[in-house]
This record gives sequence, C-alpha cells and structure tokens, in this order.
Amino acid sequence: MSTYQTSKDRMAEKIAAFSKFGDLGNGGITRLSLSEPALAARAELKRRCEALGMTVTSDDIGNIYATWPGTEDLPRFVMGSHLDSVRSGGNYDGVYGVLSSLEAAETIITDGIKLRHPLTVMVWTNEEGARFEPAMMSSGIVMGKWTKEKMFAVVETGGTVTFGEALEASGWIGDGKNRLNPQDYCAYFEPHIEQGPVLEEEGLQIGVVEGVVGMVNYDIILEGVSSHAGTTPQHYRKDALRAASKTILDLWDKLGAIAPDLVFTTGEIHVKPNIHTVVPNYVKFSLDARHRDMAVLAQVVKVIEELPKDVYGCKLSYEEHWGRKTIEFDAQLLGFVEEATKALGYSYKKMYSGAGHDAQYVSEMLPAVMIFIPSKDGLSHTVVEYSSPEQCHEGANVLLNALIAADAAL
Amino acid sequence: MSTYQTSKDRMAEKIAAFSKFGDLGNGGITRLSLSEPALAARAELKRRCEALGMTVTSDDIGNIYATWPGTEDLPRFVMGSHLDSVRSGGNYDGVYGVLSSLEAAETIITDGIKLRHPLTVMVWTNEEGARFEPAMMSSGIVMGKWTKEKMFAVVETGGTVTFGEALEASGWIGDGKNRLNPQDYCAYFEPHIEQGPVLEEEGLQIGVVEGVVGMVNYDIILEGVSSHAGTTPQHYRKDALRAASKTILDLWDKLGAIAPDLVFTTGEIHVKPNIHTVVPNYVKFSLDARHRDMAVLAQVVKVIEELPKDVYGCKLSYEEHWGRKTIEFDAQLLGFVEEATKALGYSYKKMYSGAGHDAQYVSEMLPAVMIFIPSKDGLSHTVVEYSSPEQCHEGANVLLNALIAADAAL
Repeated sequence: MSTYQTSKDRMAEKIAAFSKFGDLGNGGITRLSLSEPALAARAELKRRCEALGMTVTSDDIGNIYATWPGTEDLPRFVMGSHLDSVRSGGNYDGVYGVLSSLEAAETIITDGIKLRHPLTVMVWTNEEGARFEPAMMSSGIVMGKWTKEKMFAVVETGGTVTFGEALEASGWIGDGKNRLNPQDYCAYFEPHIEQGPVLEEEGLQIGVVEGVVGMVNYDIILEGVSSHAGTTPQHYRKDALRAASKTILDLWDKLGAIAPDLVFTTGEIHVKPNIHTVVPNYVKFSLDARHRDMAVLAQVVKVIEELPKDVYGCKLSYEEHWGRKTIEFDAQLLGFVEEATKALGYSYKKMYSGAGHDAQYVSEMLPAVMIFIPSKDGLSHTVVEYSSPEQCHEGANVLLNALIAADAAL
Repeated sequence: MSTYQTSKDRMAEKIAAFSKFGDLGNGGITRLSLSEPALAARAELKRRCEALGMTVTSDDIGNIYATWPGTEDLPRFVMGSHLDSVRSGGNYDGVYGVLSSLEAAETIITDGIKLRHPLTVMVWTNEEGARFEPAMMSSGIVMGKWTKEKMFAVVETGGTVTFGEALEASGWIGDGKNRLNPQDYCAYFEPHIEQGPVLEEEGLQIGVVEGVVGMVNYDIILEGVSSHAGTTPQHYRKDALRAASKTILDLWDKLGAIAPDLVFTTGEIHVKPNIHTVVPNYVKFSLDARHRDMAVLAQVVKVIEELPKDVYGCKLSYEEHWGRKTIEFDAQLLGFVEEATKALGYSYKKMYSGAGHDAQYVSEMLPAVMIFIPSKDGLSHTVVEYSSPEQCHEGANVLLNALIAADAAL
C-alpha cells in the first residue's frame, strides 16, 4: 500500500505560528475561549484556510468549518479539535488537532490529491471550559446535552461576561444551519495528544483510539469532631483528616485490586476548619474512576458503597456525581486509522482515551475516531506540554492516509 | 481550714451580662480585639470596678489594671485573662478569667476581707490574635517577645486597620510605666476554662495547672507529579495526596507509640492543584505536637527526621516552625491553689495546659499559676463552649481562697 506524506516542516511551522497566540514567554500559553489571543488564533486559521481556497463558515455557537470541495456530491469528512487552552496551558492540547487537520487538508490541496468527499477542518468553541464551564460546551450543545440558552447565560469564571456576550462580541456567530449534522457529514476524525504517558513509556508512535472510557465521580465525606490541638488526648479524637487518609489508602488497596488498567484519582480535598491548632471535623474528597468496561466501574461503585461507615469514630458518607458510559468509536473508521498507521510503518497500540474529548459527543451522531500522538512525560494542561515535530508529523500522516482510505471505501 | 465563698449568683450574672457584648444570637459571640463589642465590654468592666472603688488604669498597649489597695505597702497580686474572643466564639474562653477575678475581688471588697497585698484585676489586650496576629500579643510585648513597633504595624486579618490604629482609636492607651512588672507585682493568677475534655471525662471540678506543655510545629511536604486523572495508569503515578495520607497514618502509629499523653495534630493541609481530574503533585500539612516532657518532644522530632524520604515515589521533606519549651508554673502559688481546692472539698487533678495562655509569658517575669474549670464536651472557640454556673463559681472560690492563703504567706 502506497502512502502519502504531509510536510514535517509545514506542520512544525504551524505549531510555532500558533504558539504566539497567548504566549506566556515561558514555553506555554493562556488562550481562554473567545479571549483576544483565541480570536487572533481563529483569524489566523481563517486566513490560512482561505489562502488555500477553502470556504470558511461558522455556526450559531461560533464553531468554525473550513471546507474544501470533493469531486462528488457526497457528505463531508470533518476533522479538527479546539484552539482554546486552559490557563497556563501548552501548545499541543487541542490546537494540534486543528493544525494537523489543516496540514492534512493543505497536503491534499497543494499536492492535488483528489478526494470524492468534501473535507472540512473544524474548530470547536470552548472545549476546555476553563473560562466558561462546562468543558466540551459547544459539542454538548450540538449533540443536545444542554441547551444553547442555558450555556449562553454561563458567566466566565472569576468575571462578569457571559458566554453569549463573549460569542456575540467575537463576530463568530454564524447560521445555526451550519452546525455539524449527520446529513451533511459522514465521518469525524480528531487527532490529539495522548495527555498520558503510555505511548512514550511503551516507545510507540501512534495511539489508535478505540473510544473514551466510562467514568464515575463521587465525593467522599468524613465527619468527625473539631477540638483543640493542645488539650484533646488522642483517644478522645474524631479526626476527619486521619479518617480521610485511611479511606484514601483503603481505596488504593481495594480499587487497585479490581483491574490493573482501572484508573482512579482522589484529586481534590477540602478540610474544615483547616487550622493547624484544631482537629479537623470535616473532610470531603473527590474520587474519579475510569475504565472502558462498565462492569469494572460497577465494582468501583460496590467498593464505595461497602466502605465502612465509621472510620476512627468519624461518619463516612458519599455523594454520587456525574458519570458517563464508555464511548466506542466507529469500527470502520478505526480500521482506516489502524491500516494507515501500519502502512506508514509506525508502531502503535489500540487504546482508550481516559480524558473526555469533543469526539465523544460527536460519536453519538456521526461515525467518529481519534488519533493520539505521544505526550512528553505524559503531561498536558501545563506549559511544558510537548510532542516533538516528528510526532506531530506522524500523527498528521496517519490522518492524511486514513482520510484517503476512507474516501476510497465510503 | 476555714474557707471563703464568692457569690454564685453574682458570678452567673457577670457571665450573662458580658455575653451581650458581641452576642450572635445563637449562644455565642464574636468579640474581636478592640472591636466595638470588645470596647463595650471593657467599658462595662471599668464601670463595675470603679463602682467597687477600684482604681482603673491602662498601659501603653491598652492592658487594663483595676486595683484595690492592700493594708500594707507590698507588691500587688494580679489576676485576670482576656475579654476578646475568636470569630464565633463562646462566653467563657478568656472572659471567665476576668470575671472570676472580678468576682473574687468583689467578694474581698464587699465582705470586707482585709488583704495585706494590693489586688489587681487585669485584662490583656488581644490574646486571641483572631483580628491581629499573633495570639498573646500584648503579654508577648510586655515580656519582650516582640517589639511594640512591629506589633503596632500589624494589619487586621481581612482588613486595613493596624493594631496601633485600633488601639489609638479605642482610647485605652495609657502610660507605659503601668505595664505589669516584677517590682510592683509579686504573683499572677489566671483562671480559665480547660478547653479540653479531661476534667469532664474524669468527673473532676478543678484543674490545678502546673504549667503549659512544650510544643513543636512542623510542615511536612510531599512532592509528586501532577498528571491527568483519566490517562495516567496507577503504577506511573506519583500522587502526593496518597503519600500524605500514608505519612499521616504513619505519624499516628509512630507518635502514638511514644507516650500515651502526647498530643499531636495534623490540622491544616494544602493540596495542589486540588482539581478532581488531576493527580496532586504537592501536599503540605501541619504537625503540631505537645507534651510537658521535652524528652518526649525530642522523640517526636526524631520520628519526623526519620520519616522515609520517598513515599510512593513522592519526595518527603519538612520545615520546622515555631516551638516552645514547657513552662513550669510557680510551685508555691501552685501549692496555694491546690490547698485551697482541697480545703473547699473539690475534686481536682494537677495537669498541664495544652493551649497557650498569657500566663506562660507572665511566668517568665513573675510567679504565675492557672486554675482550670471543666469545659463541656471539651469544646472551646465555638459558640457552644460552656461551663456551668456551679463550675464557674467553684473556680472563683478556688481563686479567692488561694489569694487569701498567698496573702498570709507571702
């Protein structure tokens, strides 16, 4: 099988060019959704797409669609990700998916590769949720997870501007008819950095992403009695932080025994009164657990339900929060990605995404798939987030060849 | 041995009267140092002392001295505590020491009990440190722990007013020559609530306080690596909160084995980034340990020094903060308090204070002693802080009889 190549230099130039939008001067960026640097990045993308002869439109949530026509009247292929970042984020999470899609399109256009299907490079508005919660806001609106009215009223974190106001001011509000839909589009590809250490640790070039793992989220609460550090003998104490510490270690023991690839995190903790001279009477901590097999997550829930209700004299309770079922990406698109990877001679593994992505919502409406490239030290959402020019190039090559294979088959 | 009695009704009336200053309507008070309710309480105290014929002065830090003359030209006995409270505090911590001292003085004056020594009821400015840090500010200034200039420049927590400005505005700045000193005074008595559960649990009426236990304070720091909750397999993780949980439980095991009456507390914890989807990379928690035997505290330090430096892949380090040596109160004054307690037929135990009090600073300059009454459920610094009218009365009786015994002996 012959393969096509994107340009490594052009790919690297794109990453370098977009890293100026929100540049913090320390290797990272802050490019919150619809902020000035985010709008500058959008304008630059539009300029580049139009220079290639693509037609750029947007929908009523500011999602961008830059389209190159196909040779036949067929539904479009769409590929992309997001341009916004978290505060003190890096130059790869999100933007790599947009720029590798642009690089694939640029190769097709400038190399004169004829595709039967039209090809759209897409940008999702506000994937991170760092300025306007929740994350994956606009793909969630398009898929009917939440209403546009409710989301437009969301006020920015730490500020006063609503999402609707910021969108209005951006000039990017387009026609609602332009929204991604299953009539006009037939396949969605999202390249992304892994955001985890697996590919790097295993020395692999590509992750062929089979889906997004399911998750459960709980708060676990320990209630004890607050008392004076100097005057309360240890055996009288009902110390909620001691009880929380015991519970965290118990969760590591019990959840760790369920499945080797179950991931679980106690990332957030709140302690009251949190004064060094007072025994804590209240601790709440989060538990986030993810696995592709919902039966494994059911075992996680069972462990939580069976936690002892009394820990060192403190009352244990829990609250269930949001969760999601495992999302399976489209088997046929997955096949195109895997075959392209093999044909290019890249080492790879089939894996699930632990993080959420717009692709998971899209997959409810269209066949969708993701392509991962390695993340240095598994890091993302940080200024040191990094994937090498080679890795970025390889991901774009996989996308390009998967598109060509899909175009022939669909 | 014949004993004298204060008035239980008058003692109860005093507690009730002063509970109006800063009343929160829920059984507790907020009477921050030099706030409007604190100044109202000071004015009421002054009014009552002057009505009894006492002479009221203040020193240059606003400490109040209300004096009743003795029959001979001898140094004075001084007794008291503080009128300020923490935010959402109760009607006993501090104010009980002032009001039981006033009740003892009132009994001596109105019953015509002749004492050879002059008698001073004293109020320390800003014991709690809840508005202006640190705690025990003015006794610390008088004993030379810190300079007046530095303390006057302290800005209120959460506000803009300095301690010096608040003091100036209070009208309570007097002559620096009025400060407590070892020429004009020869004995210091401080009644206080226990702030712990021991007397109540053991069914005792009085704590004869032998001193204030020594303490050490450390911050213990765990540094790991922050990574994404969904994408980082458990065995790659260096989770600082897991490591902190392990360390807290290890400290309970190791410190708990040193001495049954050692108290230690991990009351304050800070976690970064403290986001539910991110593995914590940094945890700092406090360790406060107290015991009367400095050799026991040396063992605590050894345990901290010998903590493993690597906990689940996280680097453990520690920072030593303030500490204090055990303060031993004056043996002769202690004898007067114990004999008075016995003579009154009250059950008691000799004990150390776990909390800090102005008396600990005073003891460096003058013979000093404290008298504890029980705290319901061991609680203080809370609106439900409570000691019964009987308990308040018994403490005042011990003070009165100890004063009379000291007057005869000194």
